Amino acid sequence: MRIPLDRDSSIPLYKQIEDFLKENILSGILPPDTRLPSSRQLAHDLGVNRITVETAYDELEADGLVYSRRGSGTYVSPSLTLPDKPSVGASMPAEWPVWQYELLPRRDISDQPVFESGIYIAERKDLVSLAGGLPDSRLFPVEDFRKVFRSILRRDGIRAFEYGDGAGYLPLRHTIAQILSSQGIPARPENLLITSGSQQGIALVTQVLTRPGDVVIVEDPTYASALDFFRTYGLKVIGIPVDSRGMAVEQLEEIMRAYHPRMIYTIPNFQNPTGVCMSGQRRRLLVVLSARYNIPILEDDFVGDLRYDGRAQPALKALDADGNVLLIGTFSKMLMPGLRVGYVLAQGPVFQQLMFFKKISDLATSTLTQRALEAYITVGRYQAHLRRACHAYRRRRDALAEALRTYLPEVRFELPQGGIFLWAQLPGGIFSEDLYPLAWQEGVTFAVGSAFSMNKEKSPFMRLTFSQATPAEIDLGIRRLAKAVARLQGMNKKS
Amino acid sequence: MRIPLDRDSSIPLYKQIEDFLKENILSGILPPDTRLPSSRQLAHDLGVNRITVETAYDELEADGLVYSRRGSGTYVSPSLTLPDKPSVGASMPAEWPVWQYELLPRRDISDQPVFESGIYIAERKDLVSLAGGLPDSRLFPVEDFRKVFRSILRRDGIRAFEYGDGAGYLPLRHTIAQILSSQGIPARPENLLITSGSQQGIALVTQVLTRPGDVVIVEDPTYASALDFFRTYGLKVIGIPVDSRGMAVEQLEEIMRAYHPRMIYTIPNFQNPTGVCMSGQRRRLLVVLSARYNIPILEDDFVGDLRYDGRAQPALKALDADGNVLLIGTFSKMLMPGLRVGYVLAQGPVFQQLMFFKKISDLATSTLTQRALEAYITVGRYQAHLRRACHAYRRRRDALAEALRTYLPEVRFELPQGGIFLWAQLPGGIFSEDLYPLAWQEGVTFAVGSAFSMNKEKSPFMRLTFSQATPAEIDLGIRRLAKAVARLQGMNKKS
Repeated sequence: MRIPLDRDSSIPLYKQIEDFLKENILSGILPPDTRLPSSRQLAHDLGVNRITVETAYDELEADGLVYSRRGSGTYVSPSLTLPDKPSVGASMPAEWPVWQYELLPRRDISDQPVFESGIYIAERKDLVSLAGGLPDSRLFPVEDFRKVFRSILRRDGIRAFEYGDGAGYLPLRHTIAQILSSQGIPARPENLLITSGSQQGIALVTQVLTRPGDVVIVEDPTYASALDFFRTYGLKVIGIPVDSRGMAVEQLEEIMRAYHPRMIYTIPNFQNPTGVCMSGQRRRLLVVLSARYNIPILEDDFVGDLRYDGRAQPALKALDADGNVLLIGTFSKMLMPGLRVGYVLAQGPVFQQLMFFKKISDLATSTLTQRALEAYITVGRYQAHLRRACHAYRRRRDALAEALRTYLPEVRFELPQGGIFLWAQLPGGIFSEDLYPLAWQEGVTFAVGSAFSMNKEKSPFMRLTFSQATPAEIDLGIRRLAKAVARLQGMNKKS
Repeated sequence: MRIPLDRDSSIPLYKQIEDFLKENILSGILPPDTRLPSSRQLAHDLGVNRITVETAYDELEADGLVYSRRGSGTYVSPSLTLPDKPSVGASMPAEWPVWQYELLPRRDISDQPVFESGIYIAERKDLVSLAGGLPDSRLFPVEDFRKVFRSILRRDGIRAFEYGDGAGYLPLRHTIAQILSSQGIPARPENLLITSGSQQGIALVTQVLTRPGDVVIVEDPTYASALDFFRTYGLKVIGIPVDSRGMAVEQLEEIMRAYHPRMIYTIPNFQNPTGVCMSGQRRRLLVVLSARYNIPILEDDFVGDLRYDGRAQPALKALDADGNVLLIGTFSKMLMPGLRVGYVLAQGPVFQQLMFFKKISDLATSTLTQRALEAYITVGRYQAHLRRACHAYRRRRDALAEALRTYLPEVRFELPQGGIFLWAQLPGGIFSEDLYPLAWQEGVTFAVGSAFSMNKEKSPFMRLTFSQATPAEIDLGIRRLAKAVARLQGMNKKS
C-alpha cells in the first residue's frame, strides 16, 4: 500500500496514515472486509516506525472503522460503508480542472450519434432489438470455439500468450489470403495486417492516408462509427448519395477535381445502413477514377460473405491492378464480435506504414485469439458456420420484409440481397428520431437515420437489423413498431 | 470465388476466367492442390453458363495448370508453382500509385528507431537478448492461465465472446480498483477504462488531450513507442532531463510558461529507459505545477509493482486531489504481453471522451481475455506470481550489476531499485550505436540510447534489460559485450 506522507507537515505521521485510511474506508474505496497490510509490512513500505502504523490502526479500531482478528490481521469493518451505493469520496473535487472543460470545444464531437450502437444500450426485458450491428450470439459456434481454445492452449502453451509477428500470426494470414484468393481477390500473407476488428482497420488506414483538415469521400448515409472517426480525427467529410446501385459514382469526378480528397471510403456490399450493393459498372468506374485522380480507396467488406440471392460483384480490390485499393474485413460479424480480429489487405509502401501505426496504436492483437481463429477456420468449421448463418439470416430477412408488408404497408424499402440491414422509409411526415422514444415504449428499437449522415438532421429513414432477432421476434417487433407509428401519426394529426 | 468479368469486352468470358485463374496459379496466389469451385458453383457465382466455366477449366488442364479428380473436383497442379519462394504475380504493378510515395514526406517517421523493440528482431541462435522490454516468458504462469481459460469458457459460454461494457468487463474493473486502492490510489470501477495494453492507453489519452501541433512534455530519454506516437500524431515534443531522482521537475515551470504544453508524459517508477524513480519531493512539485498551470499529467506506471529495495513513493495519482492526473497501467509486463490488457484511470469529463475514443479506435478489448484475467487475479494467483517474479528479477538485476563490475568496470550505471531496465554509460568516446553491430556479432543485443531521445543523435548510453535472461545468460551476455567494447576501442585507436 502506498500512502502519500508529508514529512514536513505539522500533522503527525500516524495521523496522516489514519486520515488517509479513514477517508478511503468511508468513501467505500476500501470495501468492507478488505484486509489491510500488516503493520510491519506497511511500516516497511512507507519507511516509518512500526509503532506509527500500529497507532494509526488502533485509532481506526477505536472509531469502529476496522477490526482485528487475532493472528489474521486487520480488516475494514462491514457495517460502516454502503457498498451498493458508494458515496463520493472526500477526495473528489467539486469542480474539475479547467482543461477538462476545454476538451469539448476543442473537438466537434458533442453531437455524436447516441442511438446507433447496440453495444451500450441498457438492458430492457422483452425488448426486440432491431438496432445493433451484430450477428445473433445464439448462432455462435461457441462449443466449437471452446474445443479450439482448449487444443490451442495445449498445443502452443506459452507461445499462445507471447507477442507474435508485428503483422499478425502468420498461419492466420496464410488462411485469410487463401479465403480472399478463392473470392477472386489476389492476396498474399505479406500484404495482410491483422487488426483488432475492422474498426481498427478504419482507424489505421485513415491515420496513414490522411491528416486532419484533409477531405475524405464517403457514401451518404454510411457507417456511423467510421463517420465518428473521420470527424473526430478532423477530416472534412463529403457524402455522395447512395441509390439502389450503391454510391452515385458518376458524381465523383467533379468532386475529385474540386476538393482533392485524400481517401474514398466505401462499403460496396450490403452497405451499412442501406443494405444495397454497388453495381459492377460503378465498381469499375470507381477503380478507374481512383487511379486517374491518384486517390486511394478504403473498401470495407464487413459482411460480403452473407449473400442470400442475386449475383456477387467483384470486390474493388479484385479490379485494382495498381495498388490503389485497401481492403478491410472482419470476423466479428460472421463469428463472434468479442474476438476482435480483422485484417487490412494492402500492397506497396503503404503496408509498412500501416504496420508502424498498428505498433504505436496497441503494439499487437491478442495472439491467443488469432491462433484460435486460425485453427477454427482451417478445420473447415468456418465454412460450415457460414452456410448455417446464411440460411438463418435469409429467413430473418424474409420475415422482416413480410412483417413490414403486413403491419406497415406504407413503409417503403428495397429487399437487400444479403447482409444484416434493411433500410426503411417511414410514411410522409414521420421522422425516425421522433418515432424512436415511442418505439422504445412499445418494446422495439432500431437505428435512427440521422446517425448515419453528415448533417445529423432528422430523417424519415430507419435502419432495421434482422440478424439479431428470430422470425417470431421480428414479427412481434414490427407489430410493436406499427403501434408506435400509429401513435405518432395520431399525435401529429392533433398538433 | 469472385472473378472480375467484363461483359463488354471483346475477350470471350471463358478466356477471361481462364486468364484470371492462370495468373493466380502462376503467381502462387492459388497454391498447389487448391480445390477450385465446381463448374456449377462458379457458373452460378459469376452468372455465366456452366459450359463457359468448363471450357476455361479444360483449357487450364490442357496447359497442365490444373488437374481433375473424378468425382472430387478440379485442383491446382502441384509442380508448376514455387510455394517456398512465390514469384511476384503478374498483377503486381511495376510502380506504385503516386499517393503511396507521397505518404512519407507527409509524415516525419522516416527516422523511427529500429533497434528498440525486441518484438520484431529476427531470431538468432544462442543470442543473449538484453534488448526488449518484456518479462521472461519462461516465468509465465501458463498452466494457471490454461486452467482459468478452461473454467471461463465453461462458466461463461457465449458471453465470453460477446461485446461487453464499453469501458471494459465490470468485475475486472472492480478488481483493478481494489488493487489500486490498496496501493493508496483512490480508484473506482467507473473511473477505469480497459484498454488493449498500455500502448493503447497512451494513444487514447494523447488523442483526447491534444491536437496535432500542440506541445507535450516528456522525460529525456523516454519510452520509444510513446515518442513514436507523439511525433507521428504531430505533437511538438519537449524533453526534460532525467537525473537520479527522475525528471528535473524544477525546470518545468519556465517551459510551462513559455510553451503552454497540453500534456506532461512521465514514467515515475523505474523509468524506461533509465530505471530511476522520481523523488517524493519532485512528485509533489509536479502535481502542484500541473494544477497551477492547468496541464494534465499522463502517468505511465508500467512496472510499479516490481520493487526490489528502497521505499515506494506515492503515485502521482495518489497526490492528485483535483483530477489532473491520468494513470495508465498494464498487465503485459507482469503476466503475459500477448494478453493485451491495460487500463486508464481518470476522473471527470475526460473519462467519457476516453470511452468515445476507445470506441472509434477498436470498439472494445477482447472480453475473453478480460474475463480470464479477472478470474486469475481474484483467486490470488496474481499476487503469488508477482512475488515470484520480484524474486527472480531481483537476482537478475544483481547478476547484471555484478557482471558489469567484473567485465566492464569502466561502464557507469546506477543500480535501479526495481523494474526491468538498467541504463549504462559506455566509457569515453564510445557510442552505443557503433557498438550495436559488433555486439550482435558477438551474440548479445541491447537497446541503443538514441532510440529513446528526441534528437536521435548517437549516444554513449545503452539500455540493458535484465528481465528476459537468467543470471547465467546475463553473465555470458556481458562477457560478449565486453569483447565487443574491446574490439570497438581497438578500432577507434587505429583510426
